[in-house]
Amino acid sequence: MNTKPNLETCLSPALLHLFERKNAIVVIIDIFRATSTIAAALHNGAKQVIPVASVEECIALNNSIDGCITAGERDGKVASGLVHGNSPLEYPIAFIDGKTLALTTTNGTKLLHMVGESTAIITGSFLNIDAVCNYLIEQNKNVLLACAAWKDRVNFEDSLFAGMVANKVKEHFSIQCDSTRIMQELAQKIPNENELLSFLKDTNHYRRLTGFGLLRDLEYCTTLNLHPVVPKFNGRALVKV
Amino acid sequence: MNTKPNLETCLSPALLHLFERKNAIVVIIDIFRATSTIAAALHNGAKQVIPVASVEECIALNNSIDGCITAGERDGKVASGLVHGNSPLEYPIAFIDGKTLALTTTNGTKLLHMVGESTAIITGSFLNIDAVCNYLIEQNKNVLLACAAWKDRVNFEDSLFAGMVANKVKEHFSIQCDSTRIMQELAQKIPNENELLSFLKDTNHYRRLTGFGLLRDLEYCTTLNLHPVVPKFNGRALVKV
Repeated sequence: MNTKPNLETCLSPALLHLFERKNAIVVIIDIFRATSTIAAALHNGAKQVIPVASVEECIALNNSIDGCITAGERDGKVASGLVHGNSPLEYPIAFIDGKTLALTTTNGTKLLHMVGESTAIITGSFLNIDAVCNYLIEQNKNVLLACAAWKDRVNFEDSLFAGMVANKVKEHFSIQCDSTRIMQELAQKIPNENELLSFLKDTNHYRRLTGFGLLRDLEYCTTLNLHPVVPKFNGRALVKV
Repeated sequence: MNTKPNLETCLSPALLHLFERKNAIVVIIDIFRATSTIAAALHNGAKQVIPVASVEECIALNNSIDGCITAGERDGKVASGLVHGNSPLEYPIAFIDGKTLALTTTNGTKLLHMVGESTAIITGSFLNIDAVCNYLIEQNKNVLLACAAWKDRVNFEDSLFAGMVANKVKEHFSIQCDSTRIMQELAQKIPNENELLSFLKDTNHYRRLTGFGLLRDLEYCTTLNLHPVVPKFNGRALVKV
């Protein structure tokens, strides 16, 4: 009898309603760049990252929390009214240590608020992929890999990450989900995991972000295991497990 | 300057609203088994295939059209009130020649009715893949490959078909869509196009349909170019181009 927990993948927030979350650990995936920035900020000493849905909430938090940094992007650019953007490079130790980061983004933080009741919500990125995989294996519970996508359109890098995670943990889970199977096949095509970015050069986000002059962000976000933390949502903020 | 038309892929009916259809040829893809059955019936001489949303409409058509055969499935089985199912094997020349097939299915015929205004609606399957590709190249217009999926969940075989089509026509189109790019990579992993089914053995539909004893259907539906027709929707019925 198969008693392994299930692992499924949701490729777009617009498909989230099709998946059971109540009894699953939900992994929010927004590679470019929300969940990469969350891993970087927490590993570099941030006390917490508060994901918020709107710029207005971000500004309100700034007024109510000491040592709060407000950050956010809309359409890949620093949102009007906020000082910092959604680049993990903006949050080195010297700047973020001991602070609170209030973050709003186009896709990732929105998806996090859509999840609702679940066993746990964590965030995943290439920067913390092995930490996330080890956590999922240790917890031994159902998993939903939830891709933030781009305005509900399935994207390459979030989907690829889901496939890589599935391949890394597959011995420990029952995988009956076609979306996961497709992305496992995709992940097997990566020529060199240490040169991930070269596999992403023909994608929408690569074009969009290099168009904004953000090639260094892309390089940073595709570096494996630079920030080995597991950011977990406590109902209000993401904190290190 | 790039003047090639665009090709995009919609992986689930729940994502259809994100894609422009008005100025595109929409290819409905429901490999197991609606669009395979449509190709088989038309190639075997059916005058037309009328896709309908409900079993009730199917029965009503039967009463109003001479030589009408009603067929449909719900959850992979012949729908209650109908005589024939959604297997292409049920429609050999001796049975279907000169007849009208009224067909209702769980996913494919529903998606067709969701498309709305478009340049044209055609249906694709492995049974008519090259005919569809040649048609798309000749028309030289924007294309949306629309996967019927399974109750809105992305499925392997419809997605794979989209990737195969994209790879076959890519010289003639601008492909900027991550969903398409992912499935092009997937299609490149097929070990042998003449043994497609072996690449689909770990998918949801393989498990579901072999569970119903329908292995022969799966074998039939994964045979390339057995029924080289282009079924086109004329507003009411699918007819041969």
